[in-house]
Amino acid sequence: MQVTTSTTTVAVAGASGYAGGELLRLLLGHPHVEIGAVTAAGNAGTPLGAHQPHLVPLADRVLAPTDAETLAGHDVVFLALPHGASAEIAATLSDETLVIDCGADFRLDDADEWASFYGGDHAGTWPYGLPELPGQRAKLQNATRIAVPGCFPTASTLALLPAVSAGLVTDDITVVAATGTSGAGRGLKAHLLGSEVMGQLSSYGVGGVHRHTPEIEQNLRATGAAAPRVSFTPVLAPTARGILATCTAPIADGVTAADVRTAYEKAYASEPFVHLLPEGTWPQTQATIGANAVHVQATVDDRVGRLVAISAEDNLAKGTAGGAIQSMNIALGLPEQAGLTTVGLAP
Amino acid sequence: MQVTTSTTTVAVAGASGYAGGELLRLLLGHPHVEIGAVTAAGNAGTPLGAHQPHLVPLADRVLAPTDAETLAGHDVVFLALPHGASAEIAATLSDETLVIDCGADFRLDDADEWASFYGGDHAGTWPYGLPELPGQRAKLQNATRIAVPGCFPTASTLALLPAVSAGLVTDDITVVAATGTSGAGRGLKAHLLGSEVMGQLSSYGVGGVHRHTPEIEQNLRATGAAAPRVSFTPVLAPTARGILATCTAPIADGVTAADVRTAYEKAYASEPFVHLLPEGTWPQTQATIGANAVHVQATVDDRVGRLVAISAEDNLAKGTAGGAIQSMNIALGLPEQAGLTTVGLAP
Amino acid sequence: MQVTTSTTTVAVAGASGYAGGELLRLLLGHPHVEIGAVTAAGNAGTPLGAHQPHLVPLADRVLAPTDAETLAGHDVVFLALPHGASAEIAATLSDETLVIDCGADFRLDDADEWASFYGGDHAGTWPYGLPELPGQRAKLQNATRIAVPGCFPTASTLALLPAVSAGLVTDDITVVAATGTSGAGRGLKAHLLGSEVMGQLSSYGVGGVHRHTPEIEQNLRATGAAAPRVSFTPVLAPTARGILATCTAPIADGVTAADVRTAYEKAYASEPFVHLLPEGTWPQTQATIGANAVHVQATVDDRVGRLVAISAEDNLAKGTAGGAIQSMNIALGLPEQAGLTTVGLAP
Amino acid sequence: MQVTTSTTTVAVAGASGYAGGELLRLLLGHPHVEIGAVTAAGNAGTPLGAHQPHLVPLADRVLAPTDAETLAGHDVVFLALPHGASAEIAATLSDETLVIDCGADFRLDDADEWASFYGGDHAGTWPYGLPELPGQRAKLQNATRIAVPGCFPTASTLALLPAVSAGLVTDDITVVAATGTSGAGRGLKAHLLGSEVMGQLSSYGVGGVHRHTPEIEQNLRATGAAAPRVSFTPVLAPTARGILATCTAPIADGVTAADVRTAYEKAYASEPFVHLLPEGTWPQTQATIGANAVHVQATVDDRVGRLVAISAEDNLAKGTAGGAIQSMNIALGLPEQAGLTTVGLAP
Repeated sequence: MQVTTSTTTVAVAGASGYAGGELLRLLLGHPHVEIGAVTAAGNAGTPLGAHQPHLVPLADRVLAPTDAETLAGHDVVFLALPHGASAEIAATLSDETLVIDCGADFRLDDADEWASFYGGDHAGTWPYGLPELPGQRAKLQNATRIAVPGCFPTASTLALLPAVSAGLVTDDITVVAATGTSGAGRGLKAHLLGSEVMGQLSSYGVGGVHRHTPEIEQNLRATGAAAPRVSFTPVLAPTARGILATCTAPIADGVTAADVRTAYEKAYASEPFVHLLPEGTWPQTQATIGANAVHVQATVDDRVGRLVAISAEDNLAKGTAGGAIQSMNIALGLPEQAGLTTVGLAP
Repeated sequence: MQVTTSTTTVAVAGASGYAGGELLRLLLGHPHVEIGAVTAAGNAGTPLGAHQPHLVPLADRVLAPTDAETLAGHDVVFLALPHGASAEIAATLSDETLVIDCGADFRLDDADEWASFYGGDHAGTWPYGLPELPGQRAKLQNATRIAVPGCFPTASTLALLPAVSAGLVTDDITVVAATGTSGAGRGLKAHLLGSEVMGQLSSYGVGGVHRHTPEIEQNLRATGAAAPRVSFTPVLAPTARGILATCTAPIADGVTAADVRTAYEKAYASEPFVHLLPEGTWPQTQATIGANAVHVQATVDDRVGRLVAISAEDNLAKGTAGGAIQSMNIALGLPEQAGLTTVGLAP
Repeated sequence: MQVTTSTTTVAVAGASGYAGGELLRLLLGHPHVEIGAVTAAGNAGTPLGAHQPHLVPLADRVLAPTDAETLAGHDVVFLALPHGASAEIAATLSDETLVIDCGADFRLDDADEWASFYGGDHAGTWPYGLPELPGQRAKLQNATRIAVPGCFPTASTLALLPAVSAGLVTDDITVVAATGTSGAGRGLKAHLLGSEVMGQLSSYGVGGVHRHTPEIEQNLRATGAAAPRVSFTPVLAPTARGILATCTAPIADGVTAADVRTAYEKAYASEPFVHLLPEGTWPQTQATIGANAVHVQATVDDRVGRLVAISAEDNLAKGTAGGAIQSMNIALGLPEQAGLTTVGLAP
Repeated sequence: MQVTTSTTTVAVAGASGYAGGELLRLLLGHPHVEIGAVTAAGNAGTPLGAHQPHLVPLADRVLAPTDAETLAGHDVVFLALPHGASAEIAATLSDETLVIDCGADFRLDDADEWASFYGGDHAGTWPYGLPELPGQRAKLQNATRIAVPGCFPTASTLALLPAVSAGLVTDDITVVAATGTSGAGRGLKAHLLGSEVMGQLSSYGVGGVHRHTPEIEQNLRATGAAAPRVSFTPVLAPTARGILATCTAPIADGVTAADVRTAYEKAYASEPFVHLLPEGTWPQTQATIGANAVHVQATVDDRVGRLVAISAEDNLAKGTAGGAIQSMNIALGLPEQAGLTTVGLAP
């Protein structure tokens, strides 16, 4: 689907939500695209500026309905829709159109795992938009359908990938990931009210039931793990953006911290959006806000025989919209870094 | 050291810090004590109100120097001092005086572990102020020296205690604990500035080096674990107060979620300050703010064969000052709940 | 309505909201009351603990419906209901019952102002629960109906009262008050989501349309102002609790900062819940969290000829529930400070 | 000092602070500059990445000392230094070099006002970097010395400018501006610790003593006010970035809200970085984070006869570093919008 960059038109479905807003924020700074339709469900008919006051150049755009007619005719369509809504609208779009789904519908390979974690029928599997996985860039080139990874899987996978792919750890993995509230979306739920969130640390999806669990395991299998078992627990923290994933895994016999360092340096030496921190320095989410960046560090806890690997990302940026655009760039044959930055906004 | 309650005078050393302030906040509402000397190091000579504007009834008290002369003659002396400063001042205080150290100096049994994690000579071991440990209340009655547990060990131990003491788990334990910033104290450090902390999730003390690690293991041994190995990672979160500890451990063969529930119900049925949440409900730190309370919940992740146990507490309250007063009450023969509440301040 | 303290039963209508939760938090620590019915509208039938996890001793109480039958038979009924819902339920309650309305329905004297700011018919006027107003305590003694002030009027009035009552300022008053989000209640509104609130400062109710405006003016008239005109602007800030009100007014000819200090010292010398700060020190909301306390400071800006008076309070405590209980204490002939503290929770 | 864009080299002095970090963040995305020396005082000799982990492309740059030798030879030198440090270093720099001072040293015209608010000798007056002031762009073209406005003056002036310049208001002005903590810089001060700042609203610089007061008045005079008197009060709020300025002024006889709207529309129709919001919509700081943007709205409170004008900005962006780069662009003859965006980062 190689296109001439001057004519790439993109539509964003779900433009009044957080993922949709972040897609538009980044696309406004992308040198090779033109923003076409911006659509919504309940908010259709209202100006985008009423929902996304930070997107000043698009303030007067009126949200169109999310339907086949509106989305037709674009080179790229981003879907930032509630769970389960992508398949139907995607089916209406031309095979020539690059459709990038920020939802979960097309992420999992295994229909049984889908049924177990999401329930209902499996919509299918699209090329998975995590270019840092082994061999994945080739699968994304010229793709016309892409499933954007979940925010936790991106952070967790990139924290563990070098250790797993080098065979430095075994499969009893734990991930505890603190996340900002924007990952839960803009729906009105009592536990997401500012008064409930500020000054608060809380757990949810505990006990192996969070839907991102099989996706993390799928990624680790793609990285070389034979039968990874991931104990995954998310923690809700009082910030709008940011994920900090703390991952541990049993270290293989004889593996040292130096071996780990070498593996991480090698794995990420030429990855444009993964930043291995200097030794002794640990990730901070602030450094990644607004950037298409994952910051990573790892060490070995010799006393207990575990690798500890930690990553930080902006869940809306590299964790969703930035990752989506990175995959778009690859699919369209654009420079992978077009419209993306590794520079975060801090403090 | 049974005293008549009407005459219990208490001094607080380190009254201009966060732990000292929380001790005074709680002591102001304690029905059986009278606040005597309030002392500080660099802030001596200034009014307490300049540092603790919330302690209005004590606003005009002038901070005295932290020295033997000032602290002498009180029934109880709380030490809320920087690491390493307690031993010297404690040595000057009468054996009749109940000295309660909120610092780490006297927490560890093992001199080698002390040397390994803290460096230098081990000051000694005092009765450990976690009454919920098996048999611990008896050790605290009539004690005249008490070491207050660290905030992370209190949260982690109480999350795991029922499972460990019932033999439901084995020893490869992981703890990831998100904490508010007040746990780091009031010292001036760049990474604790508001601009660095807000909107930020970050790691520190990673890789098995945090000083609370051997203390958690010591507590788990006291609870019945043979050789617990704890992978402990703290996470700094944007709130002043609160710890949420996410703990996992391999579940023993055949143990079910129902077994776990039964063990937790039994362990905490008569603990006044540990609140086992209703099934399916997970801890939130907001519910514990200002309270001498730890909220706990646990389940089994059957897919990976791990217990997941989570606790929430206010690091300054049950995690430090509240726990200290609970132990004081026991040592003095006062009602254990005197001056303490299980009701948090939310939202 | 003098009652024997041992038998005072209280009901709280609207117990699943923030004001209702704060009433219950304080009533749990009140030595002279017993908590009877706790009621809700949509949440009736669910356990209180599902909504107020910090109120552990009441966790298993099931919320009853807010109706006449449930509320009957209590000595005191607190109404913490949405705007406009109080009048109907209050009409069903005995004249012997002390009914304390935390809503706006009965605050304003003037039916025209009611119509102008609230619309619709004026329900009436109840004794106004701000005991610090001149002569107000006498009006509250033995009252059986009390209207709790709005949170902004409490803060603004107490910032300005000494200057107004001493005739030190003239009537062109400005108030800009930053507030935490809990003042907006627990209703599900997009702009109150944590993701929208954190990292955010925003305005609402600008231009003289906020409903607390005529109430502030009414209070200033009660304090001695002839025809106060108040330009009032609220600002929403990223914290759950707290109001900081910055008030200015033209200083009368020849009035000095020393005159102002004298007036404030005199006005508040014996007020138990208003704390005039030491000279040169300015209010901080943290110092008032959870306390029935307003902290006040004032000075004169000679360059521009304006008094600047600033107050801090916890909008849920002294600003709503604490103030309500203070008025209850007066009405019932209990000690005014029963169940209330001036000690805030900080940090 | 017209330069060819391909050769513009810039140095940033004070690169380890917040203003310096924001300058570098923006300059990294500027199409016409190359970043030369980055300097610091106490942090000289350490890598920039240790202080600014978000500036990944510059992580390995070692901070040089802030001295004449290091700064010499650049086309542009930005000074982001503590108060009082700019004059000395500026004196060493060539007249050909464009020196842009983010500090206060050269902002005020009047030596008496300088002495009154800052104390000591007045260093002088440089062209003032607020291009939106009447006639100011002409003064900045080819300038070689520019004083960047204070963050509060930028917000306050742009809120009031259209009303003042159209003669719609008289001179008794009040400004209450809530600000994030980054405006106070990165120095270690107890009241800026995260534990003190979160959950906190507080006042400082009250009573007409804040140093930005005369600068606001100077700007209003430049806008046409005869003798503006500004009562200015800052409020510290729990966010890293953002200023929300609430400004009021007596409305002139007969002026209506429609007149105000017309004046604001006219004043800002062609200003690239001032965004007049749709009627009925009020500014939010989130919408401006990271952007070179001030969002403005105004109305008339007829009851009290005052204009209420509110502005939002990011204090580090348009309030400091963005404004500095905007002025640089004008001085160098570059497109005014080069390297700047009007799109904020939200949520």
